[in-house]
Amino acid sequence: MKISFLGSGNVTHVLARMVHRTAHSIQQIICRRPGEVQQLASALAIPSVISFDEPVAIADIYIIALSDSALGSLHNIFSVNQGIVVHTAGAVGVDVLEKIGPETGVLYPFQSLRKELQQVPKIPFLVHSAHKETLHTLYSFAQDLSPLVEMCTDEERKKYHLSAVMSANFINHLLTLSFDYCKSEHINPGLLEPILKETIDRVKNIHPSLLQTGPAIRNDSATITMHEGLLASHPEMLGVYQLLTKSIHNYYRLRNIE
Amino acid sequence: MKISFLGSGNVTHVLARMVHRTAHSIQQIICRRPGEVQQLASALAIPSVISFDEPVAIADIYIIALSDSALGSLHNIFSVNQGIVVHTAGAVGVDVLEKIGPETGVLYPFQSLRKELQQVPKIPFLVHSAHKETLHTLYSFAQDLSPLVEMCTDEERKKYHLSAVMSANFINHLLTLSFDYCKSEHINPGLLEPILKETIDRVKNIHPSLLQTGPAIRNDSATITMHEGLLASHPEMLGVYQLLTKSIHNYYRLRNIE
Repeated sequence: MKISFLGSGNVTHVLARMVHRTAHSIQQIICRRPGEVQQLASALAIPSVISFDEPVAIADIYIIALSDSALGSLHNIFSVNQGIVVHTAGAVGVDVLEKIGPETGVLYPFQSLRKELQQVPKIPFLVHSAHKETLHTLYSFAQDLSPLVEMCTDEERKKYHLSAVMSANFINHLLTLSFDYCKSEHINPGLLEPILKETIDRVKNIHPSLLQTGPAIRNDSATITMHEGLLASHPEMLGVYQLLTKSIHNYYRLRNIE
Repeated sequence: MKISFLGSGNVTHVLARMVHRTAHSIQQIICRRPGEVQQLASALAIPSVISFDEPVAIADIYIIALSDSALGSLHNIFSVNQGIVVHTAGAVGVDVLEKIGPETGVLYPFQSLRKELQQVPKIPFLVHSAHKETLHTLYSFAQDLSPLVEMCTDEERKKYHLSAVMSANFINHLLTLSFDYCKSEHINPGLLEPILKETIDRVKNIHPSLLQTGPAIRNDSATITMHEGLLASHPEMLGVYQLLTKSIHNYYRLRNIE
């Protein structure tokens, strides 16, 4: 199939590299700032990069990789009469595309994508369309990109997106606070690497609630008080420490696992 | 050297397996419930497993792998006149051992250890002793167990322990809440695996504050409000969601990165 991309950001960069490896061809990239994808277009031999006021070529799938906020007004500057139009957003319904094309769907890469990545990570794709045939085409296309493909509704996709915010997104913030703390206390954050890897690896087989350790689940008030003392000069971390300690405490108290 | 262990828990199980692979020999395991280590003792051909009221053999290093709370009163049931006595605790000073033996130190495995693990994960060891020669012996012994060994003071070790609670421990709790949410909403938590792995992998080279994504850093109040709606029936998660959203917002607002 002929694939075109809208947008010049991380999603276009990573997905274009993935499409390039398949038998599908990339037809065109349409974006506000064509300069941002020139390097990508050269590397992948993409024949056409245009801005929104230039003529759009016919494609089988138009992959819209724009910010959530840009999706709502896209129909003012872009629409097609044929082909499948999909967006790639977790928290936006498919109906935002209704004025853009006759066949619409969603192709949501359930991963945190950055164009700088040397290697493309494993990416589950969540696909959706209200039209059975379109859904079938999208599912099959996604399978050419990744072995991990699931169909899900708009509502389910929003829940997936929320679960990724609650885990990956907030985990990244805990890492930020922890690494900053190490730096300000002159200890080596690199030593955390093995325990972080282990923490993620082992939940593949065991529910994390069976793996919880630390002072909060033990009700170890001496250690908690000591930690609060160490965090006296880090008020932002102290607030997070106290809330998550309380949340762990509540979780296991309610379940009588203690 | 001859190594003896005190305790029958996770730390004894994992460290004994590590010692077994070296040229050092395990002399004895001393614990309250010898039955709990019989399988380990058989597997590693450890010649003696005794309870605390039996005669203790002479060893070069006694590794105390008991709970923090048991360390304070250990001197009532155990002491030696020779050999190095170390504990393995992150949040307890070395002075808790002063009535137990003439040479004392700390050998802290900076990892979450579970005896069920098939493979021993990478373990950084943080070693400490007030005596230069003892510290040298412990450092060299730890290097026989792992390529990752650092010396640090009691104060530094407490900070390392806190950094692991803030990251690994709290991360595990976020995973618990996220997996529970997926289960209660009938979506597949297994699809989170790639994004979780990616989140941990990429902070090896880039500070996580440069990798933060999601609605909180974007000030995307439409998505945040939508997520709060989805969490209306999950009050424990909602509290955590709101605090961490606010913490991310504060962190980047204060740094003017937005």
